[in-house]
Amino acid sequence: SRERLLQSTTFNRKTLRKDPLLPSLSKTDKHIGVAIGEWILDLNSISHLFNGPLLKDKQHVFKEEKLNSFMGLTKPHWLEARSTIQSLLDISNSALQNDTNLRERAFVKQSEAKMHVPAEIGDYSDFYSSIHHATNVGIMFRGKENALPSNWKHIPIGYHGRCSSIVVSGTPIYRPYGQTLPVDGADPHFGPCRLMDFELEMACFVGGPPTSVGQRVTAKEAEDKLFGLVLMNDWSARDIQKWEYVPLGPFTAKNLGTSISPWIVTIEALRPYIVDNFPQDKPPFPYLQHDDNFNFDIKLEVDLRPESSPVATTICRSNYRFLYWTVKQQLAQQTVTGCSLRPADLLGSGTISGDTSDSYGSMLELSWKGTKPLRLLNGEERKFLQDGDTVILRGYCLDENGIRIGFGSCEGKLLPAIPFQE
Amino acid sequence: SRERLLQSTTFNRKTLRKDPLLPSLSKTDKHIGVAIGEWILDLNSISHLFNGPLLKDKQHVFKEEKLNSFMGLTKPHWLEARSTIQSLLDISNSALQNDTNLRERAFVKQSEAKMHVPAEIGDYSDFYSSIHHATNVGIMFRGKENALPSNWKHIPIGYHGRCSSIVVSGTPIYRPYGQTLPVDGADPHFGPCRLMDFELEMACFVGGPPTSVGQRVTAKEAEDKLFGLVLMNDWSARDIQKWEYVPLGPFTAKNLGTSISPWIVTIEALRPYIVDNFPQDKPPFPYLQHDDNFNFDIKLEVDLRPESSPVATTICRSNYRFLYWTVKQQLAQQTVTGCSLRPADLLGSGTISGDTSDSYGSMLELSWKGTKPLRLLNGEERKFLQDGDTVILRGYCLDENGIRIGFGSCEGKLLPAIPFQE
Ligand SMILES: [Ca+2]
Ligand SMILES: [Ca+2]
Ligand SMILES: [Mg+2]
Ligand SMILES: [Mg+2]
Ligand code: NI
Repeated sequence: SRERLLQSTTFNRKTLRKDPLLPSLSKTDKHIGVAIGEWILDLNSISHLFNGPLLKDKQHVFKEEKLNSFMGLTKPHWLEARSTIQSLLDISNSALQNDTNLRERAFVKQSEAKMHVPAEIGDYSDFYSSIHHATNVGIMFRGKENALPSNWKHIPIGYHGRCSSIVVSGTPIYRPYGQTLPVDGADPHFGPCRLMDFELEMACFVGGPPTSVGQRVTAKEAEDKLFGLVLMNDWSARDIQKWEYVPLGPFTAKNLGTSISPWIVTIEALRPYIVDNFPQDKPPFPYLQHDDNFNFDIKLEVDLRPESSPVATTICRSNYRFLYWTVKQQLAQQTVTGCSLRPADLLGSGTISGDTSDSYGSMLELSWKGTKPLRLLNGEERKFLQDGDTVILRGYCLDENGIRIGFGSCEGKLLPAIPFQE
Repeated sequence: SRERLLQSTTFNRKTLRKDPLLPSLSKTDKHIGVAIGEWILDLNSISHLFNGPLLKDKQHVFKEEKLNSFMGLTKPHWLEARSTIQSLLDISNSALQNDTNLRERAFVKQSEAKMHVPAEIGDYSDFYSSIHHATNVGIMFRGKENALPSNWKHIPIGYHGRCSSIVVSGTPIYRPYGQTLPVDGADPHFGPCRLMDFELEMACFVGGPPTSVGQRVTAKEAEDKLFGLVLMNDWSARDIQKWEYVPLGPFTAKNLGTSISPWIVTIEALRPYIVDNFPQDKPPFPYLQHDDNFNFDIKLEVDLRPESSPVATTICRSNYRFLYWTVKQQLAQQTVTGCSLRPADLLGSGTISGDTSDSYGSMLELSWKGTKPLRLLNGEERKFLQDGDTVILRGYCLDENGIRIGFGSCEGKLLPAIPFQE
């Protein structure tokens, strides 16, 4: 069965295109790992095999419980790690093949692992970079004339989010209590959120050594600072958001829990799936300009599985490529006034909506503010999320040769509100 | 001279009212300490003397480089630490008095110490809790009729800030580049900020064990989660802020650097200076209600020292007590939808303005949007900050008996913008 294991990983060479990294391994401590089909290669147990010129003195980064130290190295380090792993998995490489003991420690079944948030996130920002999403929201709340805010095509708009509430896929989310204004001009109301929503997003982990306060990173310089992508669900309490967000932006409507997938797919692994950037009508200011394509064809889907049924309904099919602003431009905006970066900072893309009504990345848009309920496969209808609903984001890339890399899934179940007791 | 040292600390018993904590000590590593007059008592070197029932098994928290672990204990632990320190400094206590060697290691001159941000801040929020400040800003930008946003008296409005850009007092701040909209309806401009400002704030460090995502902390429960206060200058680029903040709030206008004072004055030390809460016209929702007074008479001053002169001008005299929302209410708002807390999270108060024009906590208000220039002692005028200006916040409490506790100062010099090179 050991043989089969190694054959299966070498046979499935396409899985080498995928080099996401996993942070957890045993019940007692957390390990960093790489996904190989159904298995995880535990980098902690093979850290001594990273003997390339850059990593041979840095093997300790693979012994840590989080990816921060590895992310804090440089792109050449990340590339060397990738090629070392690829070579270790080659059938002609004897380091793993011939060491039964090591092999046994090094491979862990994904089904037997508990996943964690892969890094200690120092700061998390969320952007608003999908033009279709921003336009939809604008039409709903400001009318067709002024759908896009006047700054939107000049600035990759973003805001700071809450790191403590970032949770790994699988963590349940509680419907929040909060203040809302059911009737304009009347008194606000306090109670469970009535317009609970998800947001289909992807988020990019920052890598590279920390920068200093005062230091800008332009879009042209951004590449070395971008480590890899995860799926993200920015759970949103729409009614709470509407009442609180003027003038300082979303706050408690967005800090009730933000789910990310545990597998980080590195930028390098995504390179075969680069596509043209979204056309930008106005050339942005130079700090936001970069010459290369840095958009990715990542197919995204959202399933909703109601409590009453084992059957999930796919309610959205979108694509990362619909983003107007690239993640290089987001990073340039994040730092333009001198905001410093630390490895494992997280940049959320904003809700990723396409231009057709089945590609919208939130219930707000899919049900058009609740005016067009969605019908689920089991016959139920949804305007917003109901207690017991599980929301599942999935993402994958597929090239002409059928080579596929997957982001796994980012899921979470919405639990009923915890009653407020005075 | 050793004798004098210990006499001076015991003579100055009033300094025991002040138990702020210091994170740095030697050139090689950072130590936690307590201010005693001009001296610092190095808690690292006396950790073995914390022999009370709660701390005797927790002495390691005093060996760490940051206050996070100590903050992550409970209020009874903090109180035991305080009384242990008070008793060690008593002239009748021989533990320190008789051990010349230990005394030598335990006391460090403040003037010889380099200060650091006292804790690893996991998340930082900034509130907007001064009614005079919110009203002033409202009058300037929305007119007298609708000065306060309609949610303002219902919600302690806040937003998430950027942890990576929090720096310790003394760190210079660079004038940022950014986008602005000099003429409404025209094209935006990219260049150095022209309306650079400070914001006089205080901020509260959160303490206690972490809470879980989904867990609320009401205002009545907040006390055990509040560790202590520091001074904070939330440097703000007003012209950048104005162009970027709709619809998602301030972002790059506020993440260019936020200065805090290194000394944390604990809530316990501030207890003698508690005053009535600011009267709230509308009773807030129950989660925001607490029965006790939790407002503090902390005198606040802002000095501006231009590059051309050694003389600083006091441009603002304000007071923490002017805050409409208490920090208990801020914490309740932070967590109402289930946002989790970690020790050393930071809650900024928002700009603290009084109701007279010499008590406004920002240049925006002091110069009334630039229409009323301030005259400095050296004859210069200011509408907003100029390159080379040093801004110095100071805070202290004084009771009827003349007992004073000080927050030290929070200062920073504004350096010219680093030119943008394409
Ligand atoms: Ca979002
Ligand atoms: Ca502020
Ligand atoms: Mg942070
Ligand atoms: Mg954080
Ligand atoms: Ni030391």
